[in-house]
Amino acid sequence: MSKYHPLSEAEAIEIARSFAEVFPTGEELVSREIGDGNLNLVFHITQPATGRSLIVKQALPYVKIIGDSWPLSLDRARIEGEALIKQGELAPGLVPVVYRSDADMALTIMEDLSDHVIMRKGLIEGGVYPDFAEHLAEFLSRTLFFTSDLGMNQQDKKVQLGRFINPDLCKITEDFVLNFPYYDAESNNIEPYLRDAAEAVWRDEELLLEAAKLREKFLTHAQALLHGDLHTGSIFVTPASTKVIDPEFAYYGPMGFDIGAIVANLLLNYAGQEHWSPNEADRRDRRAYLLSTITELWTRFERKFRALWDAHGVDKRFDLPGYQDDYMKRLLQDTIGFAGAKALRRVYGLAQVADIATIPDREARERAQRLALAIARNLIVSNRSASSIEDVVRIAETAAGSRS
Amino acid sequence: MSKYHPLSEAEAIEIARSFAEVFPTGEELVSREIGDGNLNLVFHITQPATGRSLIVKQALPYVKIIGDSWPLSLDRARIEGEALIKQGELAPGLVPVVYRSDADMALTIMEDLSDHVIMRKGLIEGGVYPDFAEHLAEFLSRTLFFTSDLGMNQQDKKVQLGRFINPDLCKITEDFVLNFPYYDAESNNIEPYLRDAAEAVWRDEELLLEAAKLREKFLTHAQALLHGDLHTGSIFVTPASTKVIDPEFAYYGPMGFDIGAIVANLLLNYAGQEHWSPNEADRRDRRAYLLSTITELWTRFERKFRALWDAHGVDKRFDLPGYQDDYMKRLLQDTIGFAGAKALRRVYGLAQVADIATIPDREARERAQRLALAIARNLIVSNRSASSIEDVVRIAETAAGSRS
Repeated sequence: MSKYHPLSEAEAIEIARSFAEVFPTGEELVSREIGDGNLNLVFHITQPATGRSLIVKQALPYVKIIGDSWPLSLDRARIEGEALIKQGELAPGLVPVVYRSDADMALTIMEDLSDHVIMRKGLIEGGVYPDFAEHLAEFLSRTLFFTSDLGMNQQDKKVQLGRFINPDLCKITEDFVLNFPYYDAESNNIEPYLRDAAEAVWRDEELLLEAAKLREKFLTHAQALLHGDLHTGSIFVTPASTKVIDPEFAYYGPMGFDIGAIVANLLLNYAGQEHWSPNEADRRDRRAYLLSTITELWTRFERKFRALWDAHGVDKRFDLPGYQDDYMKRLLQDTIGFAGAKALRRVYGLAQVADIATIPDREARERAQRLALAIARNLIVSNRSASSIEDVVRIAETAAGSRS
Repeated sequence: MSKYHPLSEAEAIEIARSFAEVFPTGEELVSREIGDGNLNLVFHITQPATGRSLIVKQALPYVKIIGDSWPLSLDRARIEGEALIKQGELAPGLVPVVYRSDADMALTIMEDLSDHVIMRKGLIEGGVYPDFAEHLAEFLSRTLFFTSDLGMNQQDKKVQLGRFINPDLCKITEDFVLNFPYYDAESNNIEPYLRDAAEAVWRDEELLLEAAKLREKFLTHAQALLHGDLHTGSIFVTPASTKVIDPEFAYYGPMGFDIGAIVANLLLNYAGQEHWSPNEADRRDRRAYLLSTITELWTRFERKFRALWDAHGVDKRFDLPGYQDDYMKRLLQDTIGFAGAKALRRVYGLAQVADIATIPDREARERAQRLALAIARNLIVSNRSASSIEDVVRIAETAAGSRS
C-alpha cells in the first residue's frame, strides 16, 4: 500500500496516455475531475483532437459525508475492479470495459460513458428506456446465476467468495440501510413534518421483525456475487444502452438484495411523480410505465434465470421438480423484502434520493415521502407471503390510491 | 509449502522434545503412530519414565478410501489448528490444548487425551456420560454464538469467515452427506437386502426436496464457524470429561449442521440397540437414556444460547421481542433436518458407523438399518414443521414401535 497516493490530474493524464488502444495518436490529453470528492477521484480524460476519452477512477482512503470523514479500506478499489471484470465476462456490454485495474494504486481505468445519462436523472426528467428491463434482467440473471452454487463450480465459488469479503462497504449498508432507519439514530435526516411517520416505523413490531430477518439475510446468506449498490444512480442509460457501474459494494450476499434495489428505486421515482407529473393523466401514464418496467424486469429476469438453470445448472440435487419453483418464489420474496428496505431508508435516512428530496414544494414532497414509506412498509411486512410480482404492483397502486 | 514432508517417527520425537512444558526432563521419548493412515499421521509421543505424553498430528496431502487416493489440501491442517485454538478460547476445557500449530508443516501439537475413550466406542460398550449433554451444550452454544453475527463484531466475522474457507473438506460433505445418498451413486455401499429401501429414498420427492434445501443451506448459509464433522467419533469422553477433537472440516455454515450431527449419531446408536441391547427392558432403558441425552442437549443448548444472546448480543436489531424465538425455532428446524441427513447417509453411504455396521447378525443389522432410515427420513421431511425437541423423541419412538 505504500505505493498509494492520490493522483494529480497530471499523473492521471500520464497514466491515460499509455492506453494506445484508446489514444493511438499523440495529441494533447485534457483531464477534468468529475468525482463528488466524497469517496473517489474520477478523472475524465479526453483527447479534444480525436474526441476519444476514458475514465481514471481512484479510491480515496476515507469517506466524507456532511463534514465528517472516516477511514475506508482502499481494498474496495480492488473489489470494484475485479467485480467489473467478472461482470463484464458474464454480461458483456452491460458494464464499462475495464482497461486496467491496479489494486496498489486503488484505481481502475475504464471506458468513458459520458454519452450516457445517470438513470435516476433520466427518470426524473421523464426519460423512457424501453430496453432497460431486458438489459437489467440479462445483467442480473447472468451475474447472479453464474456466481452462485447453481451455476459455477461450488468449490471455486468458495474461493471467489473469499476474494469479495468487503467489511467496510458492507458496514455502510448494514448501518444506513438495515439499522439506522429502524430507531431514532442520530444520522437520520427526518424532516420535522415527517417525524410522526418515522416514529410509527420504530413502534411497528411486525415491520421491525421482518427488517431484522432481512438484516440477518444480508449478514449470512452467501448466495451470489452481488453488485451491492444497484440503485438508479449506479446505472448509465441511453434509450438503447444500459451500463451498470460502481460495484464497490460487491460481496457474496442474497440475490434479492440486488434485484430489490432496482425495484425500490423505480418505486421511489413512482412516489416522486407527486411532483414530477403534476398532471393527473401524465402521472397515471408515468406510473404505469414504472410499474410495467418492474413487472417486465422480474418477468424477464425469472425467465432468463430459469433458462440458465435448465441449460447450465451444475448441481444435480437442484434439478428436482419443484425445487426450482420453490427457489424462485423465495427469490421473489427476498426481492420484495429488500426493495422495501432499500426504499424505506431513502425517505428519512441520511442518504436520500433526488427523485423525492429535490421536490421543491413541501406538500408535494411530503406526499411523495409518505407514499414511498407506505409502499416500503407494505413490501417489507408482506415479503414472505408474496407469490407474484403483481403483489408489488398492487401494493404500489393501493398506496397511491389508484386501486382500492 | 516446499518445507512440507511427512514426518518420520524420529522427527516427531525431535519436535516433541522441544515442548519443555510437557517434557521438562531429558528422559527418553517413544513414538507410536496411531492414525488410521487415510488422512493424517498421528504420533502419540510418550515419556515412559514420567508418564507424560502429547500428540503430534500431521495432515497428509491425500485421502485414501477403499484403495482410491485423491489429493486433499494441506490447508486443512491450518484450519484445524486455528479452529482448535478458537474453540479453546471460547469453550476452555472442551477441546485439547494446542501447544503449537505449524501451517507449513501441516501439523498440530496438542494435549494427549488417551485417558479418554472415543464416544462412539463408549456408547457401543454401554457407557453412560452424565455430563455429556451439559458439556456439548456449552461447547456448541459458545462456539456457535461467539462466531456468529449475534455474538461477535460483524466486520471481524467477515474476515474470520475468509480464514475458514475450506473447499476440499466441504466437498466431502457435499458429496457424501448431501448428494450421493440421494441417487444410485457408485460410492454408495448398499447391502443387497437394503436396496429396496435405498431405491425408495431415490423416488421420495418430498424427501428429495427437503434434502435439496438442506444442501442449499450447507452451501450458502454462513451463520457461524462450525466444527463441521461433529459425530461421536470426533468426541473423546470419560464420565466426567468431554473433549471435541478433529475440526478439520471447520467452515462458516449453518449452526444446525453441528447440533444435528450429534443428534444423528445418538440416534444411530439408538437404532443399533437392536443388537447391543438384546434384552427388551435393557433396550428400553438404553434408548430412553439416548433420547433424554438428545432432549437435554437441545434444552441446555437453547437455554445457554439465549442467555449468551441476552448478555452478549452485539446487534440491537436482533433484540426485538419475537426475533429470538423465531431464530431459535429455525435453528431447531435446521438441527432436525441436518440430523436426518447425517443419519441417512450412514445407513447405506460409503462411510458407515460402527454402531450399526459392526452388528454381526444380519437380521438385527437390517432392523437397525431400517430403523435408522425411518428415523432419518422422518426427521428430514418434517424438519420445517418441527417446533420442539420432543418432535425428535416422537419420531424415534414411533419408528421403533415403542410409541403409537
